Amino acid sequence: MRWSQTLVPTLKEVPADAEVPSHRLMLRAGLVRQVMAGAYTYLPLGWRAVRKAAEIVREEMEAAGAAELHFPAMSPIELWERSGRREAFGNVLLNFAFPRGDRKVHVALGPTHEEPITDLIKQSIASYKQLPLTLFQIQTKFRNEERPRFGVLRTSEFLMKDAYSFGTDIEQLNASYDAMYAAYCRIFERCGIPYLAVEAESGPIGGDASHEFMIPAENGEDSVVHCEASGYAANLERAETGRTAPQIVVPDDVPPMDAVATPGVSTIEAVCAALGVQPEQTLKTLLYTADAGTDEERTVAVVVRGDHDANEGKIRRAIGAATLSMADEATVRRVTGAPVGFAGPVGLEGVTLLADHDAVTVQPSVVGANSADAHRTNVCCGRDWTVETTHDLRDARAGDPDPKGGGPMKVVRGIEVGHVFKLGTKYSDALGAEYLGEDQKRRSVVMGCYGIGINRIVAGAIETSHDDRGIIWPKAIAPYQCHIIPLDIKDEEVMSLAQRFHDELEAAGVDCLLDDRKERPGVKFADADLIGLPTRITIGKRGLTEGVVEVKRRTDADPEKIAPDAAVARVRELLA
Amino acid sequence: MRWSQTLVPTLKEVPADAEVPSHRLMLRAGLVRQVMAGAYTYLPLGWRAVRKAAEIVREEMEAAGAAELHFPAMSPIELWERSGRREAFGNVLLNFAFPRGDRKVHVALGPTHEEPITDLIKQSIASYKQLPLTLFQIQTKFRNEERPRFGVLRTSEFLMKDAYSFGTDIEQLNASYDAMYAAYCRIFERCGIPYLAVEAESGPIGGDASHEFMIPAENGEDSVVHCEASGYAANLERAETGRTAPQIVVPDDVPPMDAVATPGVSTIEAVCAALGVQPEQTLKTLLYTADAGTDEERTVAVVVRGDHDANEGKIRRAIGAATLSMADEATVRRVTGAPVGFAGPVGLEGVTLLADHDAVTVQPSVVGANSADAHRTNVCCGRDWTVETTHDLRDARAGDPDPKGGGPMKVVRGIEVGHVFKLGTKYSDALGAEYLGEDQKRRSVVMGCYGIGINRIVAGAIETSHDDRGIIWPKAIAPYQCHIIPLDIKDEEVMSLAQRFHDELEAAGVDCLLDDRKERPGVKFADADLIGLPTRITIGKRGLTEGVVEVKRRTDADPEKIAPDAAVARVRELLA
Repeated sequence: MRWSQTLVPTLKEVPADAEVPSHRLMLRAGLVRQVMAGAYTYLPLGWRAVRKAAEIVREEMEAAGAAELHFPAMSPIELWERSGRREAFGNVLLNFAFPRGDRKVHVALGPTHEEPITDLIKQSIASYKQLPLTLFQIQTKFRNEERPRFGVLRTSEFLMKDAYSFGTDIEQLNASYDAMYAAYCRIFERCGIPYLAVEAESGPIGGDASHEFMIPAENGEDSVVHCEASGYAANLERAETGRTAPQIVVPDDVPPMDAVATPGVSTIEAVCAALGVQPEQTLKTLLYTADAGTDEERTVAVVVRGDHDANEGKIRRAIGAATLSMADEATVRRVTGAPVGFAGPVGLEGVTLLADHDAVTVQPSVVGANSADAHRTNVCCGRDWTVETTHDLRDARAGDPDPKGGGPMKVVRGIEVGHVFKLGTKYSDALGAEYLGEDQKRRSVVMGCYGIGINRIVAGAIETSHDDRGIIWPKAIAPYQCHIIPLDIKDEEVMSLAQRFHDELEAAGVDCLLDDRKERPGVKFADADLIGLPTRITIGKRGLTEGVVEVKRRTDADPEKIAPDAAVARVRELLA
Repeated sequence: MRWSQTLVPTLKEVPADAEVPSHRLMLRAGLVRQVMAGAYTYLPLGWRAVRKAAEIVREEMEAAGAAELHFPAMSPIELWERSGRREAFGNVLLNFAFPRGDRKVHVALGPTHEEPITDLIKQSIASYKQLPLTLFQIQTKFRNEERPRFGVLRTSEFLMKDAYSFGTDIEQLNASYDAMYAAYCRIFERCGIPYLAVEAESGPIGGDASHEFMIPAENGEDSVVHCEASGYAANLERAETGRTAPQIVVPDDVPPMDAVATPGVSTIEAVCAALGVQPEQTLKTLLYTADAGTDEERTVAVVVRGDHDANEGKIRRAIGAATLSMADEATVRRVTGAPVGFAGPVGLEGVTLLADHDAVTVQPSVVGANSADAHRTNVCCGRDWTVETTHDLRDARAGDPDPKGGGPMKVVRGIEVGHVFKLGTKYSDALGAEYLGEDQKRRSVVMGCYGIGINRIVAGAIETSHDDRGIIWPKAIAPYQCHIIPLDIKDEEVMSLAQRFHDELEAAGVDCLLDDRKERPGVKFADADLIGLPTRITIGKRGLTEGVVEVKRRTDADPEKIAPDAAVARVRELLA
């Protein structure tokens, strides 16, 4: 492709509003332009990279036995009401009504496609003989992002590969899940991007087992807890720690506990400031309602160190609850006898009391007094309040021991690029997708769902592979594999050689960008570094009189001078 | 691909609500399923056909020097207000506002992308040196079809290739237009669908020169006027006729004209019924306002035969008007002295009077009397009213002479599958897309736009190529090229041979569907005919004992029996 036939509007200046390297570089290299907040046009170079990534995804999905189909973006809002996700998505679900004849048609633009595909399976699948089955699409998704940001990493419209597996039972689900997991690893390896497969909560999409695929990146939105030694990786919501229940030791020299007046002081920060202590010397006592609305409804008090974050998933699992939510103010008043902000473990009755491992090692501690505007100091667990055992109830932190027995864990930032879920029967139950078993009984189809953000592969690759001059593309998703720079476009020998290189490389399957602009060499070189294609051939009049052209990789400091007839073979070698 | 790994829900019954063959067959062969009125899911077989058609389009666009990019579907409503198309599209433009933080964001879902791409060019192109340039995308478009119908032929969401050319002047536009026109011919030829390139009005999209590419099909929505001998083809709005101005001859034996009372009789049908004449014995006189709101505003009366349809484009061109609209009731009363429905050419003053060629040969005729509830009979042109000359002012009809001198023309039905337009500067003027010329002057970029409905290629192919058993796919866009049918899936020899054929053909670039279902031969054969892949191999236990398998094309009545080792080569030969 000649530069003059495509649109590559490179920018010298760094765009002011671009926060992260991938955003800055995608704008500067002419890969994307913003149409409105959260919506970007992919210009020819950017779109080639997206298409190459999409094609790798497609090939690996097919190799894993999945068949491609394509849903419309629009579907009736009723489908989303039946699954409960109209409410769960809230404002994120773009939906609108429009007139058709004398009626109104109300549609949602799919943020994912569980509902329409479950409805399709309900219509199309009758028997266990037709299962298992995995279907996928590569399609534009819509989500109203309240704060679109990070360039193309978080937008209201994006290209997603979404796959869905359908099976008769958990064994078929597990087999499909494992096949998708393995395909994801191959995809990210082929795309040349670093990734971590991270244990994850399934979140509002439902289900109970999932992994996120993360690109480690400084500017990632997500936190990943990771141990290189053991390979353990989990997102912050999910990460276990290798901490164990400590022995509860009451120090000899702690005076009896004391009550202090703390009028209006109801946060850890305020308590620390008022009493001159550090957060790690305090405990916070959080009140939850478990299994609300069921026969099992109960109030749970959770004690964690003042500087720690309680983890609701861990609390839920520790008490075997299906749901957990913060207790309302009335419950807090009833249980503690005080407004919110003054709960403490001492003398707390009528609740299930749980403590995090680290909470019982703060001896003595400052805690709420279960009385308005008051705290207690010199509180000791085992003396002033007791628990039988302790649990892992807080978010993991850097330095925590690895649950798999590796070394201390790190917390790294990551960009989520893929996600695999075991959905179970959440959607097939809601929408009535059943199959007839060999025993002639009807059962709900057991589902999994598997997403990849195609645009995020591209942005993530740039986020993790660039230098101060520009992008350094992985070969497999580079918009072109070779950048051909004729320095003097009016010289016939230079231009015909450039065209010959172009044609020979293209014939050999190496796609090329030929910079036929009338620009100074410095401009062309700077743009070539900015765009960052893996290899470059430079052809100059002076070089040709010496019988050489220059070949280099984007990552090489200096070019090799070689005979023109050897250039094509050399480029192919460098790309091999 | 094994049937058991994909989703091909064929139907034995003809769906009740499917009006046209392509719709019936696409449902029955399991290519599509409706999600809601005007929105279809493409199931795996249907989507493969769409993707193959899209890939042919992409290759030919690139071969014609166009570069691919990708816009979001959403764009700010303001862009569409600036171009005037929010109003022009009316309800067809799907648009909605949604909350983001404390603001509302109002977007349109692109029915085409002139506005966003013109805005992009405005930002990205500065100089004549960057032109000409042709950009395209293959992207989902949205339109609120008031009456979605004909299955996937007219839907609210569809896959479109839209290309846009940008040039400095009309010469560059013409060159881009010609390149796109030639690419379209190659695309439809490669896809294996019959087509006509048809002269067309440009319609509400603007501009002044365009061609539609039509698939001739009985159930097409459009009418095409066509002469096979000369190759002339035009849509009904545009089609000229080879008719010339006749000599106006007043017959000797016509009595003087007469006035008859026709109370409440204001349509041609009613006049004919009341007076016992045929429509072709009457004339209708239509009143228009030309160039409304300008200094040139004037009233035009047009006389056509009672059974003919006046053609506004022809009238506009005959009088050199920029705009033309039906005169309002006040104007009709002022000019004729009567309410609407009683205009006639006799004694009509203060208007530009035009007559169609055929109008002056109705001698005598019945006409309106320019008086309420009255008509005139025995009216003769050249005696009772006069015109200097006559014009081609009506829609063409079957049997009309060809303007290029061929034989009598036919009117055939067609499905519009592509459209090329010379837009000129309509959008670049409205949105300010200018370039700096060599003479340092700023001018509006000169644009063309070029669309292809990808889904329509597929539906059109089926509409024109099927028999009573099912689809007959053109090779290039068939979902798979070969259908492999093992008759006894429990026989190891049969199944391993089927798999071997599959693998060898796939390795040779022939994609295959292997029907591994446990079904009777009759069911498999009927489904194979219904799905209509170009070639089929049938493998049976009995045949193998005789040392043969069966190979046939979809269009062959009977299969050939050949040795298994010759089957792959034979299929490749049949597809060559």
